Amino acid sequence: MSEIKVGIIGFGTVGAGTYELLTKNKEIITSRVGTDVTVKKIADIDINSDRGVPVDQNLLTVDALDVINDPEIDIVVELIGGIEKAGEFIIEAMKKGKHVVTANKALLAERGREIFKTAEKFGVGLGFEASVAGGIPIIRALRHGLCGNNIENIIGILNGTSNYILTKMTRDGLPYTQVVEEAVNLGFAEDPPTLDVNGTDAAHKLAILVSIILGYPISFNEIYREGITSLTPDDIRFASEFGYSVKLLAIARISGDHVEARVHPAMIPKGHILANVNEVYNAIYLEGDFVGPNLYYGLGAGRRPTGSAVVSDVMELARLIRVGQKGLLMTPLGHAHSIEKAISLQPMEKLDSPYYFRFSALDAPGVLSKIAGILGKNQISISSVIQKGRKVNGSVPIVMLTHDARESNVNRAVSLIDELDVLTDKTIIIRVENG
Amino acid sequence: MSEIKVGIIGFGTVGAGTYELLTKNKEIITSRVGTDVTVKKIADIDINSDRGVPVDQNLLTVDALDVINDPEIDIVVELIGGIEKAGEFIIEAMKKGKHVVTANKALLAERGREIFKTAEKFGVGLGFEASVAGGIPIIRALRHGLCGNNIENIIGILNGTSNYILTKMTRDGLPYTQVVEEAVNLGFAEDPPTLDVNGTDAAHKLAILVSIILGYPISFNEIYREGITSLTPDDIRFASEFGYSVKLLAIARISGDHVEARVHPAMIPKGHILANVNEVYNAIYLEGDFVGPNLYYGLGAGRRPTGSAVVSDVMELARLIRVGQKGLLMTPLGHAHSIEKAISLQPMEKLDSPYYFRFSALDAPGVLSKIAGILGKNQISISSVIQKGRKVNGSVPIVMLTHDARESNVNRAVSLIDELDVLTDKTIIIRVENG
Repeated sequence: MSEIKVGIIGFGTVGAGTYELLTKNKEIITSRVGTDVTVKKIADIDINSDRGVPVDQNLLTVDALDVINDPEIDIVVELIGGIEKAGEFIIEAMKKGKHVVTANKALLAERGREIFKTAEKFGVGLGFEASVAGGIPIIRALRHGLCGNNIENIIGILNGTSNYILTKMTRDGLPYTQVVEEAVNLGFAEDPPTLDVNGTDAAHKLAILVSIILGYPISFNEIYREGITSLTPDDIRFASEFGYSVKLLAIARISGDHVEARVHPAMIPKGHILANVNEVYNAIYLEGDFVGPNLYYGLGAGRRPTGSAVVSDVMELARLIRVGQKGLLMTPLGHAHSIEKAISLQPMEKLDSPYYFRFSALDAPGVLSKIAGILGKNQISISSVIQKGRKVNGSVPIVMLTHDARESNVNRAVSLIDELDVLTDKTIIIRVENG
Repeated sequence: MSEIKVGIIGFGTVGAGTYELLTKNKEIITSRVGTDVTVKKIADIDINSDRGVPVDQNLLTVDALDVINDPEIDIVVELIGGIEKAGEFIIEAMKKGKHVVTANKALLAERGREIFKTAEKFGVGLGFEASVAGGIPIIRALRHGLCGNNIENIIGILNGTSNYILTKMTRDGLPYTQVVEEAVNLGFAEDPPTLDVNGTDAAHKLAILVSIILGYPISFNEIYREGITSLTPDDIRFASEFGYSVKLLAIARISGDHVEARVHPAMIPKGHILANVNEVYNAIYLEGDFVGPNLYYGLGAGRRPTGSAVVSDVMELARLIRVGQKGLLMTPLGHAHSIEKAISLQPMEKLDSPYYFRFSALDAPGVLSKIAGILGKNQISISSVIQKGRKVNGSVPIVMLTHDARESNVNRAVSLIDELDVLTDKTIIIRVENG
């Protein structure tokens, strides 16, 4: 095979980065793959805007089917995002025997089972390194580097926008709304950044990681999601006094058929390596039964980092095409054959975790004792308390950390406490993740 | 192929971990590979000691040739270490058409060219993930995940023993000799840990990483090596006052035919993610032209982490064997064909870097001016100075950081300064790495 031909559907940020990389680093790519890898067509509904990358106008088409139906194209790269249309294009391309590379986390998280099955049915490869954490080759680490391990624990900072916002809130003591406004103005966040800040984007990525770890898809809708929009600089400062940083974490714990998967703000000890992941950076911390703890860190988005991930998949498939390998080495989720299994995630009420509470109370005698009494009756034991008398919004904050408590007990206790006359505001709850 | 058979040569720490993992996680390995992966023979000169892993005595042999000459064995795992004997075994196994997996960093760093060529000549695979940074799948990241990139910069903490020693010296303010003695007693360091603390082990690993980045081997002997044995708690404390941590770093900078590769203690800003890599952990920070900065972190040694790396290579080769793939997808260094090229590393005299100096001087007027004069004449400009009058070993330390300076100028200036009457001891020099 003298040349391997690639078609790109979607010429936005990542499409432009992919094309730029395939063009700019052509020499090294050819040497590593063993044959030229050439972009033959690029489809986008807008073929007039300047993408900041020089491109031969003859490659451009407004019709994705021009890519899918081109018999010369070996690998179709889907980068339009969204679910319906992207899913159709991918399945259509697979039916034509084309290998597919995609960065589409929403599609794989929500309709992965169908896509993975189609790839297997038509004997084509599916690369999706770019769907999780941009430039960080975490999918390859799971499918290849750690493939002898049972991964028992994963904690990810998987959304760069949220991490940027929390970093700014922490460093500058600014409220959420102000930081978001600045981030939007600077182009660091979409306007509005809903799916980034409400945990959906991180949950999509977590769903994909957990599916690889298990070898079969999990149900995205069962992943608990809580965003960062109600975090305050006060809570971030109290967390810091307890020795913690606040991050939006995507957490999974896997042990046999026990599978937890959840996305929420959490306090993590400042000494933990994840606490030092700031700005727009992403990181995945995991523990395998043999490898022990591992961390992967890098840029989770952006034209060039995500292009790097897309191209790594294109090159892996191109290497297989070059040597004439017909059978794929593994399914998209890393097994020789697909695993027909479904599992229910552990419901959040059964979570056992340490918690942070900030109670807003009147500055009156006996308040702490009332609160502590309700906590005790609900099997929640306190590990430390800060009560400084300084007022936040006219009331006195009582801030505490608990030992491991059951989430259902926490919810019951806090709703009882919030009914007390001496409480002036709803209690703030943040889970603590000691890693 | 109903079963893929593995032979292990060397049943020490890593051999035992490899066997343990292949046995304990057999179910998941079989599912991921698509066929059983079974250890058929284990050779070691000592087949009587207990390795802490239950093993069928019938597998054991004292003769490595029993493994190499067994026609049923598909993959030979070399774990005896050392250069001569291990090299012979590997080459012999390749001649018999067997794929090889090794953890042998010294062999690959010092005689890699011969081993890589032999693998190519006989069309067999060579897995060496375990040779660098134990459980961290950094070789896979370079060969697969980042394969579209030019890697321009790599900074590694590649020796766990040195990192443990420096962590203890930093936290407890203890001198090198005391920490080493404790580490040896606790079993965290070999007795004596010569190759760990003098930079050789890290340089072996760096040689392998740089060879993958370039696509052809570099000459190990050209890598500058400086160990941690002369570091003092004083210098670590002064570094901290300047906002730096002291680490043993393995550094490479690559830009076209300019290749720097060196191992030495260096000061790195406390805010850099590498500065937070402590205890026995390893990490590799790198920058690619598209992916940007990446960090990989984990345990760099130990039975189970290194076993995890060995098994990942065994599984990758087993997947290729299972599907009947004859041609390999790439050479050991990640290209379609081997690259016949040799390059000279940049000599250290040409290094441009910021430096830390600790001058030991008499508490006399004009000392700083004399020192500064000599530095200035040698194009070395000072960025900050600490002179506190507190005595260290009877003399006053003058501690400073410089802007970028040329190493040859630094050496000339410091030897002139060390000849001054007012200097009471040899000047301490530590390079600064701002990442």
